Amino acid sequence: MASQKHSKKSKAPARTWLTNAEILTQNETRDAFVGSILIEGDRIAEIVQGKPKAKWTKGRDTKIQDLSGHVLIPGFVQTHVHLCQTLFRHMADDLELLDWLQKRIWKFEAAHTAATLEVSALLGIHELLASGTTTILDMGTVRHTEVLFKTALKTGIRANIGKCLMDHPQHTPANLRDSTKDAVSESVRLFEKWNGRENGRILASFAPRFAVSCTKDLMIQIGKIAAEKKAVIHTHASENQKEVQFVRELTGMENISYLKSVGILGPRSVIAHGVWLSDSDRATLKETGTAITHCPSSNLKLASGIADIVALKKAGVTVALGADGAPCNNSLDAFQEMRLAALLQKPKHGPTAMTAQEAFDLSNREGARALGLLDQIGSLEIGKKADLCALKLDSYETLPPAGRLASSRIGAIIYSGHPGLVRQTWVDGRVVFSHGKQGPKVPGIDPVKLLQKAKKAQAKILKSVESMP
Amino acid sequence: MASQKHSKKSKAPARTWLTNAEILTQNETRDAFVGSILIEGDRIAEIVQGKPKAKWTKGRDTKIQDLSGHVLIPGFVQTHVHLCQTLFRHMADDLELLDWLQKRIWKFEAAHTAATLEVSALLGIHELLASGTTTILDMGTVRHTEVLFKTALKTGIRANIGKCLMDHPQHTPANLRDSTKDAVSESVRLFEKWNGRENGRILASFAPRFAVSCTKDLMIQIGKIAAEKKAVIHTHASENQKEVQFVRELTGMENISYLKSVGILGPRSVIAHGVWLSDSDRATLKETGTAITHCPSSNLKLASGIADIVALKKAGVTVALGADGAPCNNSLDAFQEMRLAALLQKPKHGPTAMTAQEAFDLSNREGARALGLLDQIGSLEIGKKADLCALKLDSYETLPPAGRLASSRIGAIIYSGHPGLVRQTWVDGRVVFSHGKQGPKVPGIDPVKLLQKAKKAQAKILKSVESMP
Repeated sequence: MASQKHSKKSKAPARTWLTNAEILTQNETRDAFVGSILIEGDRIAEIVQGKPKAKWTKGRDTKIQDLSGHVLIPGFVQTHVHLCQTLFRHMADDLELLDWLQKRIWKFEAAHTAATLEVSALLGIHELLASGTTTILDMGTVRHTEVLFKTALKTGIRANIGKCLMDHPQHTPANLRDSTKDAVSESVRLFEKWNGRENGRILASFAPRFAVSCTKDLMIQIGKIAAEKKAVIHTHASENQKEVQFVRELTGMENISYLKSVGILGPRSVIAHGVWLSDSDRATLKETGTAITHCPSSNLKLASGIADIVALKKAGVTVALGADGAPCNNSLDAFQEMRLAALLQKPKHGPTAMTAQEAFDLSNREGARALGLLDQIGSLEIGKKADLCALKLDSYETLPPAGRLASSRIGAIIYSGHPGLVRQTWVDGRVVFSHGKQGPKVPGIDPVKLLQKAKKAQAKILKSVESMP
Repeated sequence: MASQKHSKKSKAPARTWLTNAEILTQNETRDAFVGSILIEGDRIAEIVQGKPKAKWTKGRDTKIQDLSGHVLIPGFVQTHVHLCQTLFRHMADDLELLDWLQKRIWKFEAAHTAATLEVSALLGIHELLASGTTTILDMGTVRHTEVLFKTALKTGIRANIGKCLMDHPQHTPANLRDSTKDAVSESVRLFEKWNGRENGRILASFAPRFAVSCTKDLMIQIGKIAAEKKAVIHTHASENQKEVQFVRELTGMENISYLKSVGILGPRSVIAHGVWLSDSDRATLKETGTAITHCPSSNLKLASGIADIVALKKAGVTVALGADGAPCNNSLDAFQEMRLAALLQKPKHGPTAMTAQEAFDLSNREGARALGLLDQIGSLEIGKKADLCALKLDSYETLPPAGRLASSRIGAIIYSGHPGLVRQTWVDGRVVFSHGKQGPKVPGIDPVKLLQKAKKAQAKILKSVESMP
């Protein structure tokens, strides 16, 4: 299914010129032009308007790929996903939140074996790469999280992964719970083993699920360890009103204040959702440098609400995007999330709020910023990692109006974009997805075999869940 | 580009069995099973579980098409679109509503020639058929609306079209305004000429744009004529708060009450939007039998708000779906509108509100009901028109969980569906779109030539708009 050899052997040529593309750089000044990009190893070595000079393209190891008619954009960065849940898509629709979590998702997660988790991760990563996402921050799961690191390694996606931490003796199910000690030690072991692998493509984070599922002791330990190791902390907070109320009852504090008090906020912290925030919460997020991952589809589907990302941005908080898990979306498609991120702010803030350009920024620059990686990824600039995506905007739906190149391109991507536009995806300069004449292809994954494995894995999980208390 | 011969000559065989498909009938009891459908002429002549009996498939004029691995659904019905605006997509993003309408859309509409309007209609119909929509209610435009009838005729879509009526001397631009007399007489002429053509596939309606753009005299005349002719009335109302306030100032009445007073409401009336409605408005809609077309993308993009369709349904009002015009969406994709229709109700009404099944109903049965055509279309039942759509749900995103056939299928269609799933579309038993090994194809439309024409037409309109006052 997924070739173990893939990571080492399917190397790109040392130098590849991608020529004649419309390049939306997403650099500081959002430059956009028809030009060419040189990929050298895992980096962008050159970007020029028009064609490269002839002398630059000489040499046996220089490949030229003509991308006339394509648009090159930075690969999408999604800072909140749950690869372990991809297998549960369509198995938890239209349910009350507590039923969704307790009767379905937690039981499904508890039922995962290493083998079913690998299938789930492969399904998710295939979908992500095929729809242009090159970087993810993944919430892992309680057990077998090492499988996610291995699967990310071999598929070629850029991933920051954290073992999901749940140790609270009352508020977590027994079959999806660690002791505080095990939660910490396994997190640290994974961090030491995986963080920085593949020249930094694989990163590790610390991922306490949310205030309710973790003891205060665990939170405090994790806050300290992550600070020492300068690691990302990934958690959920203020997703829905009942959770906010529950945290208030448990801790006597507001959610965001509580997280600050236990050392979970900071410039490398990323909080999913942030739907129910006060001005004071936003000020705390800004002051600590904590980022919010906006998950618009998930927030609607689980009836959480609409996060006020205009207010967050106005308060100076970094806002990025994430599809969340497949069962609460039900896709992992960044186009969908960008479109909703733009549309959902308008009824409250007016039609000029959250423009196509601003929604586009969330999915690249701001995602990179949230992860502390803006110097490496998030825009197409010389010296950055070659994480990019070629789109074909030649359909009716993406018909560009005459004379307003960049703005109309971005409007088309945000308001009419869909995964079908993606023709090629690169991570670290390596092709991780291509859609050519032979159809879509993620190197190393046989989609027919994967689908067969997925059906078996789903059946296995459903059977396992039936025997749970 | 579009073959004039198409309508008459590319006939389906007299009898076609579509076999081995999963059929989501959308009948009264929402039956779903693996079975076969017989298309005879323009009708569904038989539906059976499993395969047809051998004796049924004999005869030289009986074709058998194996649809193993496909899902057959009723073609989508969209009860509010503006084909004339397809050409303006991506030319009016992120603008204030008045700028959107007055500086862009009305100017663009005024600039249309018969030739540019045909291109716009072909772009729209191509997209609609390719994404599974088989029936539309179109708002036309002020001039050249006959082109829309001709284009619908030759492409094979089922369409109810009305000339857009704008006669108010103060509230409409001079270059997009009729005299009251001309508005009425041209509407009637089009109705007499076109209504019921092609064995009822082409229908005509009366389409006063909205309360502000029409004189009271015009409204009253149209109400009477439509009632006499038992014709559909198609208008916009209560889309945004400023419009509601303006109608109040102009008429001294609430919008819906005003429309009732001038005879515009009734069992064949379809109102687009209905975002700002009171309990009393909903009661009036129910009492008069008036339907609402929910346009969720458009209502977000133009910052209008979120229509409370749960409240409308609870009040007994028929609610259908429409993509509205391309510039306020920016696609004509029914999947997107179904997904949003489901998701947007949940934050207010909870996660079990507007289930996948309910959202699915909006796009077929309820659309048909709004148009007074539920006895003809809107479900797959013996005797109804053969308007249907074959989906291929074999991708990761549409992976069906084991053991819950119909519900999970519909969940996959609503929450993960997209136009790429559509493999074939039939209207009146004729194939109007197919996506086979040679790629997507709408018979009679050459997409490359159409795109070239579209670019020229856009440039022409932009040039024409520049010289407007």
